[in-house]
Amino acid sequence: MKATLITNIGELTTNVGTPDDPCGTRRDAAVLIEGERIAWVGTSAEARALGLGRDPDFGAEEVRPDVGNPPRTRHEEHVEVVDAEGRAVIPGFVDSHTHLVFAGDRADEFEARMKGAPYAAGGIRRTVAATREASDDALRRRLRSFVAELHAQGTTTFEVKTGYGLTVADEERLARLAAEVTPEVTFLGAHVVPPEYADRRDDYVDLVCGAMLSACAPHSRWVDVFCETGAFTPEESRRVLAAGVAHGLEPRVHGNQLGTGEGVRLAVAMGAASVDHCTYLDDADVAALASSRTVATLLPGVEFSTRQPYPDARRLIDAGVTVAIASDCNPGSSFTSSMPLMIALAVREMGMAPAEAVWAATAGGARALRRDDVGVIAPGLRADLVLLEAPTRTHLAYRPGVPLVARVWKDGAPL
Amino acid sequence: MKATLITNIGELTTNVGTPDDPCGTRRDAAVLIEGERIAWVGTSAEARALGLGRDPDFGAEEVRPDVGNPPRTRHEEHVEVVDAEGRAVIPGFVDSHTHLVFAGDRADEFEARMKGAPYAAGGIRRTVAATREASDDALRRRLRSFVAELHAQGTTTFEVKTGYGLTVADEERLARLAAEVTPEVTFLGAHVVPPEYADRRDDYVDLVCGAMLSACAPHSRWVDVFCETGAFTPEESRRVLAAGVAHGLEPRVHGNQLGTGEGVRLAVAMGAASVDHCTYLDDADVAALASSRTVATLLPGVEFSTRQPYPDARRLIDAGVTVAIASDCNPGSSFTSSMPLMIALAVREMGMAPAEAVWAATAGGARALRRDDVGVIAPGLRADLVLLEAPTRTHLAYRPGVPLVARVWKDGAPL
Repeated sequence: MKATLITNIGELTTNVGTPDDPCGTRRDAAVLIEGERIAWVGTSAEARALGLGRDPDFGAEEVRPDVGNPPRTRHEEHVEVVDAEGRAVIPGFVDSHTHLVFAGDRADEFEARMKGAPYAAGGIRRTVAATREASDDALRRRLRSFVAELHAQGTTTFEVKTGYGLTVADEERLARLAAEVTPEVTFLGAHVVPPEYADRRDDYVDLVCGAMLSACAPHSRWVDVFCETGAFTPEESRRVLAAGVAHGLEPRVHGNQLGTGEGVRLAVAMGAASVDHCTYLDDADVAALASSRTVATLLPGVEFSTRQPYPDARRLIDAGVTVAIASDCNPGSSFTSSMPLMIALAVREMGMAPAEAVWAATAGGARALRRDDVGVIAPGLRADLVLLEAPTRTHLAYRPGVPLVARVWKDGAPL
Repeated sequence: MKATLITNIGELTTNVGTPDDPCGTRRDAAVLIEGERIAWVGTSAEARALGLGRDPDFGAEEVRPDVGNPPRTRHEEHVEVVDAEGRAVIPGFVDSHTHLVFAGDRADEFEARMKGAPYAAGGIRRTVAATREASDDALRRRLRSFVAELHAQGTTTFEVKTGYGLTVADEERLARLAAEVTPEVTFLGAHVVPPEYADRRDDYVDLVCGAMLSACAPHSRWVDVFCETGAFTPEESRRVLAAGVAHGLEPRVHGNQLGTGEGVRLAVAMGAASVDHCTYLDDADVAALASSRTVATLLPGVEFSTRQPYPDARRLIDAGVTVAIASDCNPGSSFTSSMPLMIALAVREMGMAPAEAVWAATAGGARALRRDDVGVIAPGLRADLVLLEAPTRTHLAYRPGVPLVARVWKDGAPL
C-alpha cells in the first residue's frame, strides 16, 4: 500500500477542534497517509521518533531555497516524504452546492446586471434551452473541465445539481452525467418552472414529483427545491421534498435568497441537511436553524455576482447555527468555482474570522452533505488534503485572488 | 527569428480603440509574433490567405476536445501555430503599483482588521523592521517568487517600489534588487517616517531628498511619496518629488487614500504620471485630473483588504479622467497580486464595465507608467499577450477568483 508522510507542516488545520479553536490547529505537524486514508497525525518530531519516512538527511533541512518550487520529495522504504517546509495544510475543500452540468454561458446577462439590471431567477431558462440542445458528450466534456478546475483549486468533494434539463429525459441525463463525477448528486427538477409549463405549473410539479423523480432518483442522493418568489411556493416545495424523501432521497433547500420567506423553516421542518443562500433571515429563521441539525450554507459568490447584500454569517454563528460556505458555481448568479475566493468574501463581507471561513469551507461543507469521512484530518478519514503556498490558512483571505494551492491529495493520491 | 502565429482568437482585445470600443475588439482574429515584437494583426481568414503558419489541416479544426487542455501547436516553416480555439486574447496585464521587495508578512494585522481594527499606515514600520533584518538573498528569493506569481497570473509588466528600507543603505539595496526584475523601479523613501526619526521628521525628509535619493536614483526611474495624514504633508511631498525630478526621476504620488487632501492636486501640478488610490476626491480633484495627463490609478485590493469604501471609477471615467487599476501588492493593505481579481472588483464595486476594467488593467497601466510599447496589441509593440481559458475578457469579472490565464507570452516568449 502506498504511503505518504507530509512533514514540517507549519500550521495544520485538522478541524478536530475545541470551542476556542474550531480548526483544531497543530503546529510543526506531520500527517501519514496510507492508501486512501489518513493513518496518523502528530508532530514532525513524533514522526521522526517513530521512524516514519526515515531518511538519513531527515530533520537536517534548511529553509527551502525557493518558495516557488514544488516541495522536494524522497522515496524511502515505500514512504514518500513530502517536506511542507513550514507551509500550511488544510483539508480539501468541500463545495456542497454547485450546478456544473450545463451548456452555454450568460456573460452578457452578467454584464447587463453590472450596469444595473436586476438579477432574476428566470434567466435560468436560457441555460435550460442551451443545455437541452447539447449532446451528452458536450455536457460531459464541459463537466470534466469544471472538475479539473475544482481540483486545481483544492476542492476534493463537491455536490452537483441537475436543474437545467426540466424534462424527464434531460433531468435523467444530467443526473446520470453528474453521477459519473461525484456521489453527491442532487435532483433539482424544481429549479424553475420551464416555459412550456408557464400556464400550468401544477402539472409541472406533478411531473417533478412523478416521472422525473423516478427517472433521476437512481442517480441521486439528494432532492432540492428552489423555494423563492418566482420559483416554487412553500407548498409546492414541500410536495417536491416529500416526494423525494419517499423515493429514498435526502432533502436540501434553496431558500431566502431574494427575500424573506418560508424556505428556512421548511428546510428545518423537513430535516434538510442544509438550507442554502440564507441572505434574508428573520429572528425566527435564525432560532429555527440554531435548534436544528440543518446547516446554513452561505454562497457569497452569488452576492458578489448579483450585487445583492451579503448574508450575515456573524449573526448565524453567534446564534449557534452551523455555517457552511460553497461556490454555487453556475452560469447565471455565480460563475465561480473558487473556494479560496469564497473564504475571502466570507471574511471581507460576512463577518467571519478566517478560521471560521476555512472551517465552513471544509468541515462545514462536509456537515452540509452529511459526510463524516471528509472535511476533517484525522486517522481513518479520507486523505483529502491541500498544501498551501502560504504559512497559514489566513492567507486564503489575506491574499485574495492569488492561486495559493500548491498541491492537492484526494483519497491519498496527488491530483 | 522565432515566429508564432496565434489564430482562431474568438475575441482579441487590442486596445487600439474607438470611443465606442476602447478595447479595439476584433473577432476571429490572429496575431503574428516575430522575435520580441508583434509583427501583424488580422483575422484568421487573412492569416490563411497570407499563408501564415500554413498547415495542411489548417482551418479544418473542430471544437477542441477538452477545454482543460493546453492549446495544440504545430511547427511549420519555423512558425509555431497556436490555435486559440475561440478563446480570448488580451494584452499582458500592466501592474503599475506594487511593493514587492520586503520580508515577513502581517497576516495577524489583517485578521485583527477584519475583526474591526482600523487600517493605519503605521503598520508599514513592522515590514520595515523585518526587511532591514533580511539578507539580500532572502529578499531576492522572495521577490523572484512574486515575479513568478505575477507571470502565472498574466502580468507581464510591473512596477516595484522601495520603501521598506528607509535608510540610505536599505533603500539602495531595495532599489538595486527591484532593478534586477523590472525597469519600472520607484524610489519611495518617503513611504513613512521611520521610528528613529519620529521626533525629527524634517531631518528624515532631508535624508530622503539628499543621500538616500542619490543612492537610489541610479537604480530607479520614478520618485513617489505617500502624501497622506500620518505619512507626509503636501509640502514635504512637494520637496521629495522636486528633489527626485532634479535627479532625473519622473514623479508619481500616493494620494487621497484615507481622506481628502492635496495629493491629487500636487500630482497634477507636478506633472506626475499617476496619482494612486484616489479613494476620496472632491470635484476640484476630478476636474484637475480630467484636464491633465496624470492617470488616476485605482487600487481596489486595498479597499477589499482594509474594508474601506471603494473609489468611484464611474465618476472619474465620466469626467474624462484616464483610469488605471493596479494591485498595490504589499503585505499591509493589499497582499494580492491578482490583476484578474482587481478587474472583478472594479466591475463589482467601482462602477466599471468589464471592457473598461480590462483596458484599465492593461493600456491604463501602461499610461500610468508612460510606456507606449506595452498594454496594446499592434504591430511593432512588445509581444506581451495572455490567452484566456474563456471566450471573452468579460469572464475575468464574470468568473471571479477562477484562474483563467491559460498561456502567457512576454517579449514573444512563452512564460
